[in-house]
Amino acid sequence: MVNTTGSVKPVENFILTLSNPAFGVYLLCACLLVLKMMGVTLLTIYNRFRHKAFICPEDAKWLRGQVVVNDTVERIRRAHQNDLENIPIFLAAGFAYLWTHPYVWLASILYIGFTILRVLHTIVYALIILPQPTRAMLWLGGFLITGYMAIHSAIYVFIYLVT
Amino acid sequence: MVNTTGSVKPVENFILTLSNPAFGVYLLCACLLVLKMMGVTLLTIYNRFRHKAFICPEDAKWLRGQVVVNDTVERIRRAHQNDLENIPIFLAAGFAYLWTHPYVWLASILYIGFTILRVLHTIVYALIILPQPTRAMLWLGGFLITGYMAIHSAIYVFIYLVT
Amino acid sequence: MVNTTGSVKPVENFILTLSNPAFGVYLLCACLLVLKMMGVTLLTIYNRFRHKAFICPEDAKWLRGQVVVNDTVERIRRAHQNDLENIPIFLAAGFAYLWTHPYVWLASILYIGFTILRVLHTIVYALIILPQPTRAMLWLGGFLITGYMAIHSAIYVFIYLVT
Repeated sequence: MVNTTGSVKPVENFILTLSNPAFGVYLLCACLLVLKMMGVTLLTIYNRFRHKAFICPEDAKWLRGQVVVNDTVERIRRAHQNDLENIPIFLAAGFAYLWTHPYVWLASILYIGFTILRVLHTIVYALIILPQPTRAMLWLGGFLITGYMAIHSAIYVFIYLVT
Repeated sequence: MVNTTGSVKPVENFILTLSNPAFGVYLLCACLLVLKMMGVTLLTIYNRFRHKAFICPEDAKWLRGQVVVNDTVERIRRAHQNDLENIPIFLAAGFAYLWTHPYVWLASILYIGFTILRVLHTIVYALIILPQPTRAMLWLGGFLITGYMAIHSAIYVFIYLVT
Repeated sequence: MVNTTGSVKPVENFILTLSNPAFGVYLLCACLLVLKMMGVTLLTIYNRFRHKAFICPEDAKWLRGQVVVNDTVERIRRAHQNDLENIPIFLAAGFAYLWTHPYVWLASILYIGFTILRVLHTIVYALIILPQPTRAMLWLGGFLITGYMAIHSAIYVFIYLVT
């Protein structure tokens, strides 16, 4: 690539491309996390049907159930809410992290590690309920990964902006 | 563009540009979905004022209402929650999908289709309550679009990474 | 850069680069907002421990507390929910806004302004509860910024697509 400005690192234009494996792994993990969250939605629906515990009168009427709070359904909804609180911020921090030119192996470990931790988190929250601190540790691992990427990226970008 | 690496497809650098209509439609639909969600927020506020049903003591004090659960407000909040569970994952999957070099017409149908389905979903959930399975079908359409894009993108990126 | 297509504005390839200060400020604010949301999570946990008010039986058993609704915890959870309703849509609208070639000073004011407003919003919601309309005004400022960016970007992209 012919660089006409001098101030732009040529590598800058090659961040959001599949030729950058860190970005490829990011996209792959983003898709897997989306599918995992969709799985939680399906699990909610399955348990609403199974327990005939619905959220709206028109649903209860249609499926001959009741508008009622069910423990199993509420547990899965808490797992879902925990996803909503943790996964979008991971996707934002992980996107920013790409601009810090991380080692591909490190970025891959962080992205894939977060994805695995969140899958396990959902399993022990909603499917096979294990005693604490199992769930707490799985959540903490993902939280620390997101925090590391957000802090590292914020410092990196801030220094870039002011220098 | 002069390609100096040989391994990068030139087209790769033209994905996130308005010259790529698929990306333009993606951005447009993202903005419309943002505005739709903001509309749900305004609808919540309108009904909190109308029914004087607030969520915090300081709000109730200010507006001479009560901290109380109102059926209409809760229904709109459920519609909003459904948005939070479905729209961010669509935006993530739709972003990844851009790297699979989809046909512009197909990508446009998926992006615009999802947007229309979600607008209709909100209408039948919170404004004009229709008997089920109307809302279920509208939700399912959007869910399938997100799922298709996430699975297709995950496979595409995975194959790209391992070959 | 050597432009071989003629139809692509050269500047288009320099949007998602740290050499574009508007993008740098966007990334920085995204990371700060992620960290702010993580702070709300930590505040929730701190208050769950302090009041021994947990959300799951296995948590209560582990930490010798109860599954109970606590006012302080619920207040922080409402602040968190408000973040989930407002921050992801800001990140989406702010991303689209980059393609409208905004003045760097204007984009920076909007991004940084939103970030400051949301930090203050969390403080008056969950830490130092001030009488309304303090929180309402702080929320409104962020809402208007998101709305402006979404509408402006939607119109800009729509015109680009149809012409």
